[in-house]
Amino acid sequence: MRAVFQQSLSELQDRLTLMAELVEASIGEATTAFGNSDAELAENVIERSEEIDALSLSLDELAFDILLRQSPVASDLRLVVASLRMSAELERMSDLAEHIAELARYRYPDSAIPKGLRKTFTRMGALDVEMAEAVVRLLREQDPAIIIEIRDLEDDLDKLHAKVFTKMLSDKVNADALGLVDATLASRYHERFGDHAVGVAKQMQFFFSGEIA
Amino acid sequence: MRAVFQQSLSELQDRLTLMAELVEASIGEATTAFGNSDAELAENVIERSEEIDALSLSLDELAFDILLRQSPVASDLRLVVASLRMSAELERMSDLAEHIAELARYRYPDSAIPKGLRKTFTRMGALDVEMAEAVVRLLREQDPAIIIEIRDLEDDLDKLHAKVFTKMLSDKVNADALGLVDATLASRYHERFGDHAVGVAKQMQFFFSGEIA
Repeated sequence: MRAVFQQSLSELQDRLTLMAELVEASIGEATTAFGNSDAELAENVIERSEEIDALSLSLDELAFDILLRQSPVASDLRLVVASLRMSAELERMSDLAEHIAELARYRYPDSAIPKGLRKTFTRMGALDVEMAEAVVRLLREQDPAIIIEIRDLEDDLDKLHAKVFTKMLSDKVNADALGLVDATLASRYHERFGDHAVGVAKQMQFFFSGEIA
Repeated sequence: MRAVFQQSLSELQDRLTLMAELVEASIGEATTAFGNSDAELAENVIERSEEIDALSLSLDELAFDILLRQSPVASDLRLVVASLRMSAELERMSDLAEHIAELARYRYPDSAIPKGLRKTFTRMGALDVEMAEAVVRLLREQDPAIIIEIRDLEDDLDKLHAKVFTKMLSDKVNADALGLVDATLASRYHERFGDHAVGVAKQMQFFFSGEIA
């Protein structure tokens, strides 16, 4: 019985890590698609999103099953509860990567990014990818130091998000209505992606310490 | 022991309903503040957001405590798991109401809404308020018919969201960069608010049927 229990918990962690790896692949491809107006790469992200949704569902079912059959306590219970929430955060990260990819696809072969903002978006995309990579590492290595790393990356991301708006409202970016709408949405998607990475980090903090944040 | 258990579950439901009622108050005030450029009302929403965050935290702690001490099964377990997720959905709805209120406050005494979009945003706001009210009723009456009602409202909301973009990109709305950015964000916030109302509805569906959606 104990062995079955341990196996379920480790299966839960495996599914979570796999989800995070798929999200990392998606945000990587989404930012490349967005930067290079690559419609094919964007299509990959959109397709992978379904796979991630299915994985999230299977993870939730497993977590519920563990609660029902095993009545875990202490750090095991924290892991299961945190997993239920992390699966929601990761699913949302996948949705946001999909939204970024869709912006690239809608405007293909044009670019969704107004001139004067390309460099800022390249950096935002790189930060999102870095955050996704840190989330995978956090789940795999369970090192609390990675939580601080993720929070620092979010600070940088927020600064770039603010910069996009400052630039759009200055004379430096001469964008039409479509360019302004796309850039507003894209910046918001990038920023929200980072927020959800922090959401995962908070759940791992809860798993480590028992503190609900 | 059984009496304590039933009392905890009913306390959990009370906190959830209270959270939903506060969210309903916030979105009501946020849409009025947004429509009428009322900075004072916007301030209310921003302050209430902290109260909702604290309530969400207390709800999560109670849910975790029930899992730890009572090891609920069947529909009781579904209620606790669903509550953990609904508290996250409601907290997010509160954040979005706050974002809408902030848009009103930043632009005060000007309006954040470009001319030509006011009617559409008034309708979006009214739909958000209606969805929040339906969420309160769903939690209180536990009538599955309200889930369908919420989904229908979301369809209407999505149509208005699309309409905002069509109008912004046509000649009908003669907005400057700030107006376009604000309207893009506002439309997105309204639409996401509705998505999270559907998120609550899905969790209640899970509670009723055991089906994870």
